[in-house]
Amino acid sequence: MPRGYAIKDTKKPTDFEVIEFELKKPGDHDVDVAIECCGVCGSDHHTITGGWGPLSGPCIPGHEIIGTVTQVGKSVKDPKIKVGARVGVGAQVDSCGECANCKNESEQYCVGNKEGTKGMVDTYNSTHHDGTAAQGGYSTHIRTQEQFVFAIPDEIESTDAASMLCAGLTVYSPLLRNGVKKGTRVGVVGLGGLGHYAVLWAKAMGADVTVISHSPRKAEDAKKLGASEFISTKEKPDWASEFGREKPLDIIISTASSNAVDIPAFLSSLSVHGRLIFVGMPEDEFKSLRSQQFAGNGALLGGSHIGSKVEALSMLDLAAKEKIKPWIEVLPMKDCGKAIQRLADGDVRYRFVLTQDLEDHKKAAEKA
Amino acid sequence: MPRGYAIKDTKKPTDFEVIEFELKKPGDHDVDVAIECCGVCGSDHHTITGGWGPLSGPCIPGHEIIGTVTQVGKSVKDPKIKVGARVGVGAQVDSCGECANCKNESEQYCVGNKEGTKGMVDTYNSTHHDGTAAQGGYSTHIRTQEQFVFAIPDEIESTDAASMLCAGLTVYSPLLRNGVKKGTRVGVVGLGGLGHYAVLWAKAMGADVTVISHSPRKAEDAKKLGASEFISTKEKPDWASEFGREKPLDIIISTASSNAVDIPAFLSSLSVHGRLIFVGMPEDEFKSLRSQQFAGNGALLGGSHIGSKVEALSMLDLAAKEKIKPWIEVLPMKDCGKAIQRLADGDVRYRFVLTQDLEDHKKAAEKA
Repeated sequence: MPRGYAIKDTKKPTDFEVIEFELKKPGDHDVDVAIECCGVCGSDHHTITGGWGPLSGPCIPGHEIIGTVTQVGKSVKDPKIKVGARVGVGAQVDSCGECANCKNESEQYCVGNKEGTKGMVDTYNSTHHDGTAAQGGYSTHIRTQEQFVFAIPDEIESTDAASMLCAGLTVYSPLLRNGVKKGTRVGVVGLGGLGHYAVLWAKAMGADVTVISHSPRKAEDAKKLGASEFISTKEKPDWASEFGREKPLDIIISTASSNAVDIPAFLSSLSVHGRLIFVGMPEDEFKSLRSQQFAGNGALLGGSHIGSKVEALSMLDLAAKEKIKPWIEVLPMKDCGKAIQRLADGDVRYRFVLTQDLEDHKKAAEKA
Repeated sequence: MPRGYAIKDTKKPTDFEVIEFELKKPGDHDVDVAIECCGVCGSDHHTITGGWGPLSGPCIPGHEIIGTVTQVGKSVKDPKIKVGARVGVGAQVDSCGECANCKNESEQYCVGNKEGTKGMVDTYNSTHHDGTAAQGGYSTHIRTQEQFVFAIPDEIESTDAASMLCAGLTVYSPLLRNGVKKGTRVGVVGLGGLGHYAVLWAKAMGADVTVISHSPRKAEDAKKLGASEFISTKEKPDWASEFGREKPLDIIISTASSNAVDIPAFLSSLSVHGRLIFVGMPEDEFKSLRSQQFAGNGALLGGSHIGSKVEALSMLDLAAKEKIKPWIEVLPMKDCGKAIQRLADGDVRYRFVLTQDLEDHKKAAEKA
């Protein structure tokens, strides 16, 4: 029976306990995966601490999953998704497949089918269409609808590929959808798991990247990752008006997970109709925001939610071709509590990846 | 000497007093206009009541101006802007002419020249580059840089054209810039001066228009103006989730001048990456806004500021070709205090236009 590291009490978000759990019932479009490794995402922390709301039951987090296919439903058609193949699963494991968004390569924005019986299923702290609790990747196995299973190019190591599937995709999708290309001026707020990917991808897409951070601590890392400029808002509080006047940014990706950031300043640093896209999900409300702050340059503030399969495959292609390596720290899966604590403390540059230790992954994969 | 109806005390915003004032010094690119009529804009009310901040001196409001050219500077090149021609002036009377935005047909987003000596000049409660106080259109004359003077097509009556120059242009620009075309699903929040133009233009551009209003009072007007659907949020509080799921809007133009409106609901009624554009400028802050509300559909919230000359001319062309008539009520200019009071009371469908009564306009125009 599948096993995983679970949190039962949001007041004790580092007290993981190994539990057995059931996979969803096997469907014709489902893919079974023996998990090799899994990234540790800020969402895991928000969820198991109750910051985004209560848990629906014991919760095994993790939605940056790499593993080996051990079984496929009879209707799975993608030739790359076959028994023995290395694949990934991100932050979504199902959608209705029927709504306009699902049919339009925007399954991450699924609004559910007409009957109201099927909709978006998150990878954990969620419920599959068949009623089974969805559990994440700090575990031995996952069973997922094929649309949410991505073949991993041989060029990318498993531990590198893992965190691309949420952190990477979450910033890749808005960069792509907002037309980032050679010469686009991209700002990245916050250099963490998501932010460091935003710099890597934007740079690979030909953009000119500025990292905007509270303190100057990460200036050197920003440059190493490919940023051409680094702004410490503490040291240069008037940066935004200078940018707005002299070298406006076309798009800012904000990965900040707190609303302590100065949104009006970000807006004023943008070009005409420039965009500030939030991919971080602060638990509190926006502060001191007025419509007047959008009028000076016709700026837009928006959100984005992970990415589609088409975008995931495009991102993995780019990573393989450009040999893009995330900055990660690898730990055994039993250290998930430590990883969550260090994540909460901001002690990670820039992503933890947990490797399987509840079973011998090679044997599990070979058995398939 | 030019004369106009001025407010001196924001506590007495209907106590207009006729004052004499000076025009800016004549420049080679300037156009002198004898004013025939002028619309009454919500901005006039916000300004003379101090809602947007203190007055810089006695203030003659009005920035929906139609008149006759009486003099042109020697460098004015537009053959349509000549002595005797009928022209309009909107909410902006100058810009630096040197920044990237000015050079890119976005002079309404002027960021000022490098030396910091020239920038955006609003039509009133503002200061010309030469230091003269800028005064608006509840007056006999205005002198303006040619970029901000628009030839009025013969097909449009002066009193109809007036309110197009701020109310009309302010909603036309974001409709155009956000790609509204045949079949686009457009929502219009608030049916007032701006909102009724948004319905007229969007309909003329081929869009399918839904008017969203608090009460059901204006349902019949909305249909007459061209809307195919009318939502009273009081009578149908759950409209937004139904729209989001079944018939999402592609763009919403919010003309609401209060932030009592339910922004999260508007966002949830949009299509993937749909846009909520604020053209109303509430005096208070946005309420209860969180980044999570943008994630479900990757929605964008933005602002817009009047429109460029290119857009003004395109709007006037559309109005002439499609014979679009705004709904206005004409009053003599001396009734400006009454108009401001009735505007504050919401007693206008949908725009007041004041006609010249401080001098004989025909004679003033003929003298030219």
